[in-house]
Amino acid sequence: MEKNWILVEKYLINFLQNEVYKTSLKKAVIGLSGGIDSAIVAVLAKKAFNENLLAVMMPSQFSSESSINDAKELADKFSIKYEIISIENILESYFENYEDKLRVGNFSARARMNILYDISAKEEALVIGTSNKSELLLGYGTAFGDLASAINPIGDLYKSEIFDFAKYLNLPDSIINKPPSADLYEGQSDESELGFSYNDIDRFLKLYIDDRVKIETIKKIGFDENLIDMAVKKIYQNQFKRKPPIIAKLTDRTINQDFLYPRDIKL
Amino acid sequence: MEKNWILVEKYLINFLQNEVYKTSLKKAVIGLSGGIDSAIVAVLAKKAFNENLLAVMMPSQFSSESSINDAKELADKFSIKYEIISIENILESYFENYEDKLRVGNFSARARMNILYDISAKEEALVIGTSNKSELLLGYGTAFGDLASAINPIGDLYKSEIFDFAKYLNLPDSIINKPPSADLYEGQSDESELGFSYNDIDRFLKLYIDDRVKIETIKKIGFDENLIDMAVKKIYQNQFKRKPPIIAKLTDRTINQDFLYPRDIKL
Repeated sequence: MEKNWILVEKYLINFLQNEVYKTSLKKAVIGLSGGIDSAIVAVLAKKAFNENLLAVMMPSQFSSESSINDAKELADKFSIKYEIISIENILESYFENYEDKLRVGNFSARARMNILYDISAKEEALVIGTSNKSELLLGYGTAFGDLASAINPIGDLYKSEIFDFAKYLNLPDSIINKPPSADLYEGQSDESELGFSYNDIDRFLKLYIDDRVKIETIKKIGFDENLIDMAVKKIYQNQFKRKPPIIAKLTDRTINQDFLYPRDIKL
Repeated sequence: MEKNWILVEKYLINFLQNEVYKTSLKKAVIGLSGGIDSAIVAVLAKKAFNENLLAVMMPSQFSSESSINDAKELADKFSIKYEIISIENILESYFENYEDKLRVGNFSARARMNILYDISAKEEALVIGTSNKSELLLGYGTAFGDLASAINPIGDLYKSEIFDFAKYLNLPDSIINKPPSADLYEGQSDESELGFSYNDIDRFLKLYIDDRVKIETIKKIGFDENLIDMAVKKIYQNQFKRKPPIIAKLTDRTINQDFLYPRDIKL
């Protein structure tokens, strides 16, 4: 079912304002990659905070050239203030070679988190997250890297819905039309790494997660069994990325076990 | 009440082995700072994993010289395998100056997390956390930096208990006797930054958190009201460091709201 994007937009702008203002902060920062997820969040945050939003572009020598151009086009179109800070020097200062793409990719994501949090401290701003529900459920992201944030307005929207929302928000075609990519190296593609299209994956995730339909029932509907196996395995194996560390219990009240205040309680 | 350290030791070694082995990994990595917390965890992890433990020392140009020596003394005494990787180059490649010590400190903690997670991927090992309960409750640590880990054996032990445990485990005097410090810059001291000794802070935290005694009652016992104000404020203000990001709810089943599998579920 198509969402009512007018309502979703209002609700998410309200969410951003509420969550930022109740921390006593007035500003937000966001990492802008040139991809569709951070583009949507940037546009929502612009509407929520106007001049109090700062977007940070953090390309590496492995980012595709179009990414930074797409990010700039978006920033210009919506008058979003931005800075560009390359992570190339940080990568150069750590890696002897770049053979292991996965390690370089995760290190890059965490270096970007580090810079974004440093800027948030300098600017007294909150870091807004940009992970969608499909990648959060599949664990298709870097723990303490792109998955790190204070608040996330799109973490309950599936990737296939993100495209519809982007059209509603009038994002540039260059951003809407390119294939989804973590952009950690040239030619990387989400859908070829996952082995299936987001349309198919999301159709399964909605049934299995949102609607709590049993796997046996979903199989009878005629889903690709390889897709089901891939998705279920990733959901469970990457559950750790969505949870804080496990603490060995030694008292009557252990953090995140029976010490459980809400995240944003204020005196 | 003094803990039974013989039992605690056995329980924590068992915890480490269970939590690592059930992920299908066989190894552990730990950041070794030269401080008492990571020293205790290293000794426990050595007993749990023997040759399958790797300690990583990550000094910066701002670490005190004794730290690396203390870390090496511990590693030698307990035959713990280690690597030394300086973060000096990473800091040089990002900062133009080092005037803001807090920003440099947080950036350093997150750079160390990044390196430790990179090594954990290379070694196929789990990252063991080293934050104690006092600093976790006060939020005296860097989110996505030293607070990041997969499992934490000492997160339910107060700092004042850590000293007793260290004596029981026969840690070197150099480590036990130095004043607690985050060691992010020369001469930094936990107790002067917090304004109170860990003995006094922990006595309050045990009453307030573990025993659920009301603040009014604790005040009547004769605690320093400034200590109470400091601790209560930090507990609530830093609750966000102990929790995953807040996601705007848009479906019947939202990650970390009503999608709540345990962290370590396996198929």
